[in-house]
Amino acid sequence: MSSRVLNKLGLCETLALISQREVTALEVINAYFDQIEAREAAVGAWQERLTREQYLQQYHEQENFYRASLLQGLPLAIKDTIDTQQFVTEMGSAIHKGRQPADNASCIEALVAAGAKVLGKTVTTEFAYFKPGKTANPVNLQHTPGGSSSGSAAAVADGMVSMALGSQTAASVIRPAAYCGVVGYVGSKDEYSLRGIQPLAQSLDSLGVFGRKVEDIELLRSILLQQAKPAADLPQPLKVLVCKGSEVGDCDVQMEQALTQFAEQLQQGGAELITLDACDLIRQLVMAHETIMAWEVCRNLYFEAQHVEQVSEPLHELFIRGQQMQRSEYLAAHDKVAKINHWLWSHPKHQGVDVILAPAAPSAAPAGLNTTGKPHMSRPWQVMGLPVVTVPHTAADSGLPLGIQLIGRSRADDQLLAIANWAQTLLNR
Amino acid sequence: MSSRVLNKLGLCETLALISQREVTALEVINAYFDQIEAREAAVGAWQERLTREQYLQQYHEQENFYRASLLQGLPLAIKDTIDTQQFVTEMGSAIHKGRQPADNASCIEALVAAGAKVLGKTVTTEFAYFKPGKTANPVNLQHTPGGSSSGSAAAVADGMVSMALGSQTAASVIRPAAYCGVVGYVGSKDEYSLRGIQPLAQSLDSLGVFGRKVEDIELLRSILLQQAKPAADLPQPLKVLVCKGSEVGDCDVQMEQALTQFAEQLQQGGAELITLDACDLIRQLVMAHETIMAWEVCRNLYFEAQHVEQVSEPLHELFIRGQQMQRSEYLAAHDKVAKINHWLWSHPKHQGVDVILAPAAPSAAPAGLNTTGKPHMSRPWQVMGLPVVTVPHTAADSGLPLGIQLIGRSRADDQLLAIANWAQTLLNR
Repeated sequence: MSSRVLNKLGLCETLALISQREVTALEVINAYFDQIEAREAAVGAWQERLTREQYLQQYHEQENFYRASLLQGLPLAIKDTIDTQQFVTEMGSAIHKGRQPADNASCIEALVAAGAKVLGKTVTTEFAYFKPGKTANPVNLQHTPGGSSSGSAAAVADGMVSMALGSQTAASVIRPAAYCGVVGYVGSKDEYSLRGIQPLAQSLDSLGVFGRKVEDIELLRSILLQQAKPAADLPQPLKVLVCKGSEVGDCDVQMEQALTQFAEQLQQGGAELITLDACDLIRQLVMAHETIMAWEVCRNLYFEAQHVEQVSEPLHELFIRGQQMQRSEYLAAHDKVAKINHWLWSHPKHQGVDVILAPAAPSAAPAGLNTTGKPHMSRPWQVMGLPVVTVPHTAADSGLPLGIQLIGRSRADDQLLAIANWAQTLLNR
Repeated sequence: MSSRVLNKLGLCETLALISQREVTALEVINAYFDQIEAREAAVGAWQERLTREQYLQQYHEQENFYRASLLQGLPLAIKDTIDTQQFVTEMGSAIHKGRQPADNASCIEALVAAGAKVLGKTVTTEFAYFKPGKTANPVNLQHTPGGSSSGSAAAVADGMVSMALGSQTAASVIRPAAYCGVVGYVGSKDEYSLRGIQPLAQSLDSLGVFGRKVEDIELLRSILLQQAKPAADLPQPLKVLVCKGSEVGDCDVQMEQALTQFAEQLQQGGAELITLDACDLIRQLVMAHETIMAWEVCRNLYFEAQHVEQVSEPLHELFIRGQQMQRSEYLAAHDKVAKINHWLWSHPKHQGVDVILAPAAPSAAPAGLNTTGKPHMSRPWQVMGLPVVTVPHTAADSGLPLGIQLIGRSRADDQLLAIANWAQTLLNR
C-alpha cells in the first residue's frame, strides 16, 4: 500500500490494517511524515513539532509499549491552547512566548496511555479567538482553514495525522472541521476533563476532537472516558429537526442547498424530518452567546487584559465589551438561554427529536487568510452546552467542502455519534 | 493599636483604618508576621511562604503601587491547588513535588492587580480530597481544621492573614471555614474563572474565598468580577427555608440547636421561616454528588490514577469506584440532581424563598488530625451549583465554633452575600 493512500485513511481503518499485519505502524508514521515534509511549508498546520528522526527515535525507545497498545504509537496533533510537557504552549500569543506548562492536559495523558504519541502542537488563533495564525486550508491554500483550531483541522484534512485535539468556545472545532472537510466533534458541557486546556469562557469551553471518520471519534471518546464503546442502537424512526441556516443568521444558498440535500438523504434512509420554525429564538441564542463570552473572556484572560498592547484589536474590543458590561446583561443572557433551551426540547412539535441538523458554517471556507470566517452557526448549540458533530457532506462550486452539523441532546454524546456514524455511512454509499 | 488586635480585624475594617491613617499597611503586615512567627509551628497553615524580610523587601520595591492600590499590599494566602508563578504548586501530593506552574491563576492576577500580595501557599489535603495535611485547628490545636482548604481557613482564623483563596468540590471551603470560625464563600457554578485552579471534578469545582466578615468577601468578589459592589436591597420580608441537618444526613444535637437558634434570630430580625420537608430528596443529592465526583475525579486525575502507589488509600478507592462505574449511573445521578433542583425551587411551599439555611458541617470540628471530618452537609448544594456562605455562629460545649451555611439561588451570589451580611450583623449585635 503506497504511503499516499496510507496517510489518508481513518484511524480505525489504519489500526485494522496494522492489526491484520497488512501494514506496520512505522509505515503509517512514515507516510504521515512524508506528507508533512511535502506539504507543511504550504499548509502551515504546525506551531512546533517533532522531526521524523525525533519521532522515530522516541518510538523505538518505547516500541514494546506501542506495539502492545491500542493506538500503536500513531501521531496525535494538539492545539496550542492545550498544555503539554514536551512542548511550549503559547496560545497563539506573543505574551506567552516560550511558556512551559508543568503538566500534560488530562486528555493528552489518557490518549498517550492508550498508545498515541504527540507529534506536536498545532496552530491556534490568538487565545482561540479571532486573529488567524499562519495555517492555510489544505483543500485550497488560498482559503482560510477556519479557526480557532486551525492547525488541528488542517493537519487531519491534509493527511499529516489522523487524530487531533482542539477546543471550542464559539465555533473553534466545528467551523475548521467543516471548512477543511474532516469530522469534528465537541462534547456536551462538562463531559470531559478540561484540566490543562487553557480556559477562555467557563460557561462555554468544550474539548474537541478531529478525525476522518465518525468511528474514529467514537474510539477516541471511549479512551478519553475510559469506557467501552456503547452498543449503537439507533432510534426507530430517527426524528431529525432541521434548522435552516437562515434561522441562525446569514447563510449562503449553496449551504442551504447542502443542508436540504443532507436532510433528504437521511429521510431516504428512514429518518423523519421536522422543520424548525424558531421565530428568531435561535438568533437570540447567537446574541446571548456573544454576551456571555464577552463577560467571561475578559475575566479569564485577566492577565492579558492588563497587557492590551500585546493583543489584537478584536480581542481588545472583546475585553472592553466584557469590562463595560453590566452584570444584569450577563445574567439576562443566561436566563434567555435556559428559557430557549427549555422551549426547544419541550415544544410539542419537537417531542422525541433525536438530533438537530444545521449548517456547520454559513458557507464553504472564504477566500483569504486574514480572517477565519464567521462563528455564528455554532453559537446557539455551544451556549446550550449540546454535543455536536460535523461531517463533510458535499463540495461547493469552489470545490471546498460544505459541512453539516448534527446536534444532540445534552449528555447524549453516545447517541449523537451513533447517529452521525449512520449518517456518514449513508452519505458515502 | 497593638499588633494583637490589628491582625484580627476584618479586611474592610483594616483598609478603613489605613485610609483614615490610624494605622499603616506596614504595621498591619508586621502584625500578621508577628502572628505567623508566634503560631505557625503549632498551626501549620503554610506549605511555602515568604519570610517577613522577603515580603517587606518586595513590598518596598513596589511601595508606590501598593500605597495607591485598593488592597494596600496586604497579604493573601493561596491554597496549594491554585497555580502560582512565585511558588511551586504541589496539590498536597508527592507526585507533584517541585511542580512549577507557568502562570498565576486568573483569580490571583485580579487580586494582585488590586494590590493584594501573595504571602504564600497554604496546606491542602492531597488533591483537595481526604488525606489531611499538617494543619491544626487554631481554635483548638487537637482538632482538625477541616479540609481540603485547611491552611487557608486556619491562616484567616488565626489572624495570619485576613484574606485567602480556596476551592471546593465537595465541602472544601465551607467545612474548614465552619470548623475554624471564619467566613467561607463558594460561588455559583461557572461564576468565576477557574483558569489555573487545578480541577478535581468539572461539574462540581468552585472557587472559594475566606475572610473574617461577609463584607470582606463582598469586596474580594467585586475585585474578582471587576464590578462595583451592588446595592444591597434585602427582600422584604426575607423568606428563609430551614434545612435541618437530619434532612442531609448525620448531624449532632448541638449543631441542630445552633441551626434553630440561628433561624430564630433571623426570624426576630424580620425573616419568615419555612421548614424544609425533603422526604429523603436532599439525602439523594448527597449520593448523586458522590457518584458524579467519583466518575469525574478519576478522569481529571488521569495521570495520578496511573501512579496509585503514590496516592492515599481513600483516593485510590475513589479512582477504582469511578473507573468501575457505568456511564448510566453517572448520567442517572445528573438527572436526579436536575429533578430535585427543580422540585426544590418549584415546590409551592418554597415559592419566593430567598435563601436556604443549613448546618455547615455535622458538628463542630472533631478531635484529631487524622481526618478532616465528613463532607455530606455541603454535597447537596455543591452538586446543584448553588452559591454558599458560612458564617460563624456560636460555640459548641468544646468551645469550637458551630458554623451555619446560607445557600442562595443559582447565580444570585450578590443577593446571598447581602443576606449573609445582614445575618452576620444581626448575630453580632
